[in-house]
Amino acid sequence: MSGEEKLSGGKHLVGINECKVHIMMGSGSDLPVAKKAVSILEELKVPYSITIASAHRTPALVEQNVKGSTAKVFIAIAGLSAALPGVVASHTFMPVIGVPVSGKLNLDSILSIVQMPPGIPVGSVGLDRGENAALLAVRILATSEISYLHALEGHLSRMREKVIRSGVELVGE
Amino acid sequence: MSGEEKLSGGKHLVGINECKVHIMMGSGSDLPVAKKAVSILEELKVPYSITIASAHRTPALVEQNVKGSTAKVFIAIAGLSAALPGVVASHTFMPVIGVPVSGKLNLDSILSIVQMPPGIPVGSVGLDRGENAALLAVRILATSEISYLHALEGHLSRMREKVIRSGVELVGE
Amino acid sequence: MSGEEKLSGGKHLVGINECKVHIMMGSGSDLPVAKKAVSILEELKVPYSITIASAHRTPALVEQNVKGSTAKVFIAIAGLSAALPGVVASHTFMPVIGVPVSGKLNLDSILSIVQMPPGIPVGSVGLDRGENAALLAVRILATSEISYLHALEGHLSRMREKVIRSGVELVGE
Amino acid sequence: MSGEEKLSGGKHLVGINECKVHIMMGSGSDLPVAKKAVSILEELKVPYSITIASAHRTPALVEQNVKGSTAKVFIAIAGLSAALPGVVASHTFMPVIGVPVSGKLNLDSILSIVQMPPGIPVGSVGLDRGENAALLAVRILATSEISYLHALEGHLSRMREKVIRSGVELVGE
Amino acid sequence: MSGEEKLSGGKHLVGINECKVHIMMGSGSDLPVAKKAVSILEELKVPYSITIASAHRTPALVEQNVKGSTAKVFIAIAGLSAALPGVVASHTFMPVIGVPVSGKLNLDSILSIVQMPPGIPVGSVGLDRGENAALLAVRILATSEISYLHALEGHLSRMREKVIRSGVELVGE
Amino acid sequence: MSGEEKLSGGKHLVGINECKVHIMMGSGSDLPVAKKAVSILEELKVPYSITIASAHRTPALVEQNVKGSTAKVFIAIAGLSAALPGVVASHTFMPVIGVPVSGKLNLDSILSIVQMPPGIPVGSVGLDRGENAALLAVRILATSEISYLHALEGHLSRMREKVIRSGVELVGE
Amino acid sequence: MSGEEKLSGGKHLVGINECKVHIMMGSGSDLPVAKKAVSILEELKVPYSITIASAHRTPALVEQNVKGSTAKVFIAIAGLSAALPGVVASHTFMPVIGVPVSGKLNLDSILSIVQMPPGIPVGSVGLDRGENAALLAVRILATSEISYLHALEGHLSRMREKVIRSGVELVGE
Amino acid sequence: MSGEEKLSGGKHLVGINECKVHIMMGSGSDLPVAKKAVSILEELKVPYSITIASAHRTPALVEQNVKGSTAKVFIAIAGLSAALPGVVASHTFMPVIGVPVSGKLNLDSILSIVQMPPGIPVGSVGLDRGENAALLAVRILATSEISYLHALEGHLSRMREKVIRSGVELVGE
Repeated sequence: MSGEEKLSGGKHLVGINECKVHIMMGSGSDLPVAKKAVSILEELKVPYSITIASAHRTPALVEQNVKGSTAKVFIAIAGLSAALPGVVASHTFMPVIGVPVSGKLNLDSILSIVQMPPGIPVGSVGLDRGENAALLAVRILATSEISYLHALEGHLSRMREKVIRSGVELVGE
Repeated sequence: MSGEEKLSGGKHLVGINECKVHIMMGSGSDLPVAKKAVSILEELKVPYSITIASAHRTPALVEQNVKGSTAKVFIAIAGLSAALPGVVASHTFMPVIGVPVSGKLNLDSILSIVQMPPGIPVGSVGLDRGENAALLAVRILATSEISYLHALEGHLSRMREKVIRSGVELVGE
Repeated sequence: MSGEEKLSGGKHLVGINECKVHIMMGSGSDLPVAKKAVSILEELKVPYSITIASAHRTPALVEQNVKGSTAKVFIAIAGLSAALPGVVASHTFMPVIGVPVSGKLNLDSILSIVQMPPGIPVGSVGLDRGENAALLAVRILATSEISYLHALEGHLSRMREKVIRSGVELVGE
Repeated sequence: MSGEEKLSGGKHLVGINECKVHIMMGSGSDLPVAKKAVSILEELKVPYSITIASAHRTPALVEQNVKGSTAKVFIAIAGLSAALPGVVASHTFMPVIGVPVSGKLNLDSILSIVQMPPGIPVGSVGLDRGENAALLAVRILATSEISYLHALEGHLSRMREKVIRSGVELVGE
Repeated sequence: MSGEEKLSGGKHLVGINECKVHIMMGSGSDLPVAKKAVSILEELKVPYSITIASAHRTPALVEQNVKGSTAKVFIAIAGLSAALPGVVASHTFMPVIGVPVSGKLNLDSILSIVQMPPGIPVGSVGLDRGENAALLAVRILATSEISYLHALEGHLSRMREKVIRSGVELVGE
Repeated sequence: MSGEEKLSGGKHLVGINECKVHIMMGSGSDLPVAKKAVSILEELKVPYSITIASAHRTPALVEQNVKGSTAKVFIAIAGLSAALPGVVASHTFMPVIGVPVSGKLNLDSILSIVQMPPGIPVGSVGLDRGENAALLAVRILATSEISYLHALEGHLSRMREKVIRSGVELVGE
Repeated sequence: MSGEEKLSGGKHLVGINECKVHIMMGSGSDLPVAKKAVSILEELKVPYSITIASAHRTPALVEQNVKGSTAKVFIAIAGLSAALPGVVASHTFMPVIGVPVSGKLNLDSILSIVQMPPGIPVGSVGLDRGENAALLAVRILATSEISYLHALEGHLSRMREKVIRSGVELVGE
Repeated sequence: MSGEEKLSGGKHLVGINECKVHIMMGSGSDLPVAKKAVSILEELKVPYSITIASAHRTPALVEQNVKGSTAKVFIAIAGLSAALPGVVASHTFMPVIGVPVSGKLNLDSILSIVQMPPGIPVGSVGLDRGENAALLAVRILATSEISYLHALEGHLSRMREKVIRSGVELVGE
């Protein structure tokens, strides 16, 4: 279960029973989007687990992975008619963040995740925005753990420097 | 369980264990669309049952209604991010027809039902097209029961007469 | 008429008079989508036939192919303003599954197939989803032939294993 | 066959064998759009006929009405997945003008009529634009009958006066 | 500052310095959507505050309201080009939930809130879905306060009963 | 030419030869949108003229109104395939602001005005946003006339007060 | 003026004063779409001329080319906010066929050409469908010149053979 | 601060305190669109400055760059949920031109910039249309500086020649 090395050499992939954020993909083809989330979680030192389970083909696996998880936040990544985030949300009371994956239409996955019926909430980030899903997850953790607040401050500082540096490079030196 | 009178006075609503077509709505507000399907099924004398169950709020009820049904065809009616048809299809090997329900966007329910991922098929009819869902269900039954073929022929004849009569009325007499 | 070898070496392409599923493409350029359907039908050992006929350029050929077929289910594949599935449905009482083909807009073929007027039903699967069209066709056959139920169970098992295996590979071994 | 009084009291509705423009509606509900076309044709004194026939429910009637017509231009009016204009165009070599009818989506009828596959042309006017379909039909007649050119000039003069008068009214007197 | 009575007679509207959820509307016309959120928060006994501030017309007020708030979750409600959720997210490290408000286009507010650039996350719920925004906010609070978990369980039970009861009413008694 | 009284009793409608902003509508039905622009121009005391002229039906009138005007900014208001702003821009080197008018599609007028080809610029404001067109026009005048800067400051102050007051009313007193 | 060789070696490009169909492109980048039209016109031996003129950058050239032409049908090809077909239609009483050109959005050129306001008709064919524009132009010519009817019959025969042959190739021999 | 060489070797990039047009990009990836604007400004000899600043990640930098600028016109370039133009407009009374940048959806950036709420105007040009943003900026400058009028006349002449030359090349010599 040392998949962490495989993904990015980080240290924070832990077993499904110790993680704070659980990333679930609807299909192996969603991995590039998941990696953006993983990259942020590892940078901000958040223990996470990551699984693949299909809302339609392996619904029991989805339920088992969600109910068996210690995660405080779930990130569900899916394309097309993306039912996964809603199904995850129906198996837990923890917050669920949906990430629509791009394809031939794009409006399909966005609307499938955003337009949840009343009663089962999902918070959708933008198309393929795995990094924003992770940042939103860390903000949620930061509501009760101050260390994540500091991690977010550090991340924002680095982002700001990058914007400013790109501006400096633009006008030359 | 004599809801048939309540719906339209027809005779063909039977218990969930004897029906040939099972109509499932995601919410009570989908009833006007369901009634269009019921109207066709009663006209063509097809035993049906009808239930309300939510893919997200009562997933166990969906599963129980589907697995406990004798239906050969399922019609799943839902709006917004319409996960119901796909969830029904994941609980049975019988064919599932999805009916997207209109709302503020319309593309949300259409794309949620049409754009199913590979492996779990749903056949979508048009927006609010309960009558076409029922006609498609009867065509499916007609693949093995010739009496439904005759019922469909009768229905098409009546439709054709209606088109022709409206043309005659147009140009007057 | 032994086109089966040509397509994929399978054994199940039979003459138009013996098939259970008839696949009709609107144009030769729809072949990649048709092949996804063929692949499922051959895997599940369903006799099928496959033809090309245009709703607008060869309407008589469409009618002749449909009326001369023994198929219990028709799969009609077309792009752009995709009139083929509706025209097929007007020549038979057997169920018709439409497959919209992707192009520069995508919404054109999806809406042309989904938004059929009342009276002539077509069940649409997703964009380029030939495999789902075939699986829906087999579900329809399974309403009266139990052997196809077993074929579908086998297929679902293989799909599930694939999802689970991709999850195992993800976290490494 | 004196439907002309019924429609608007005009004199130019003639039998299907003497008309220059044939208006075909897919359904009686398209009549308000057809009336806009009729109004222009009567103003410009163009003999026309008008019929209702459905591309899917009464395809033989469509074919018979088209092939039995003396019209030099066909106007086909339809909503939803609007196959009628294309089907009309496949039964004649005369030019066909399609009019998409508004509904819950609008993009469905527009794209169904505009996105015809190569080989069978249809010229689409705007949503519910019966008047423009009629004006385009008269322009087509005017390519060989100079009297229609004069009729069009008169119509444009009246339109221009209306625009100018509305401007004068705006700034008061 | 006892606006709570004004809104719905609830007891949980508190001052901006004591709330757990801060609801910000971009304009007074967003109130009907905000009321759906308020209704859930009062039912689940969550202290909240509610303000109006415009991302473009009163950006300083937005900043002051956000930075002066003790809220652990922000709900930002806005229509058209809905910049408010993103601006709120740039003034806090607490999680921000965006609610797109319906209008003439609908895709404008949805895409403006969903398609945030990388770095500043917003979780979007559906069009006009104030109730889901509140439920997601309570889920976030429930990651660290177990009492909210019980509140959510109670709410889900009531929802389930409602679905089941509507099904019972459907088939009559 | 004292249309000013007719419109709103304001004092600032002047002849076409003395105005600073020229508002042109494509049709009399665009008047409600034009009135929003007029209301701002009168509030900020900007001399304006207002005319109706159609890009297609009275192109010569468009050209004459534009070339004969002393306006420093043109506001062109039109719906459907809204060619007016582009045509106005081709007759002047002064800046042109386009206002798309709502209808059955809305995307038609927005995209027709926004997606101008390279070389002839038009700046589009939002759907039916006559007031924003006027405010942008005044900003343009303010680049060289400082009095308009003060007018804009006053307007913004009043808007801000309105937002703040609506917030105060919300929470009661 | 022997551009015919340059385009395709055909014989039918004639001077602007002798042509029956005038093809106007909004920009040189529309040439691939124009060539599809040219190919049909040459196959069916229709004298045509072809010019480039921009509705916004060279409006006088558009007017001069249209008014100086002997064409009975105009084909106007343009992308983005495609004003060209409407402008051409305002300079002639002959029928105008619009061809929307594909780009980053596609809905922009389609809606700009289809959604013409009442009074100035344009018949739109599909995205990049130069060949259908030419076929519609020949149908228009065929309303008064029987030789074009024969040319169209020949073309349809060849198209039909192609469809049938592609079907034969599919199933092998 | 001699970034001008770096961009295009032009002479007109000046310090932020002397420019007439200020171009602000939301991210370094918007540079290709900005360069189209720069190219026009240098051709027409307009002093400009160019910066990168993010509405969400560096809002203080946006405010400082806008308030510290002498520009009479601002061009704000951004993709996705493009809040930058609106934020710039809230920090100045000078006119702001928004340029939506293309991506996976395109409608997101267009609608985010076009659909500004009432009170804070932004004039949007087309997708990636940096050149039109610059031309509109020069038109605005030309309302008070006649030299820019001459620059625009020269530019239009060159454009016209290019259109005419491409037409001449088309038909050969």
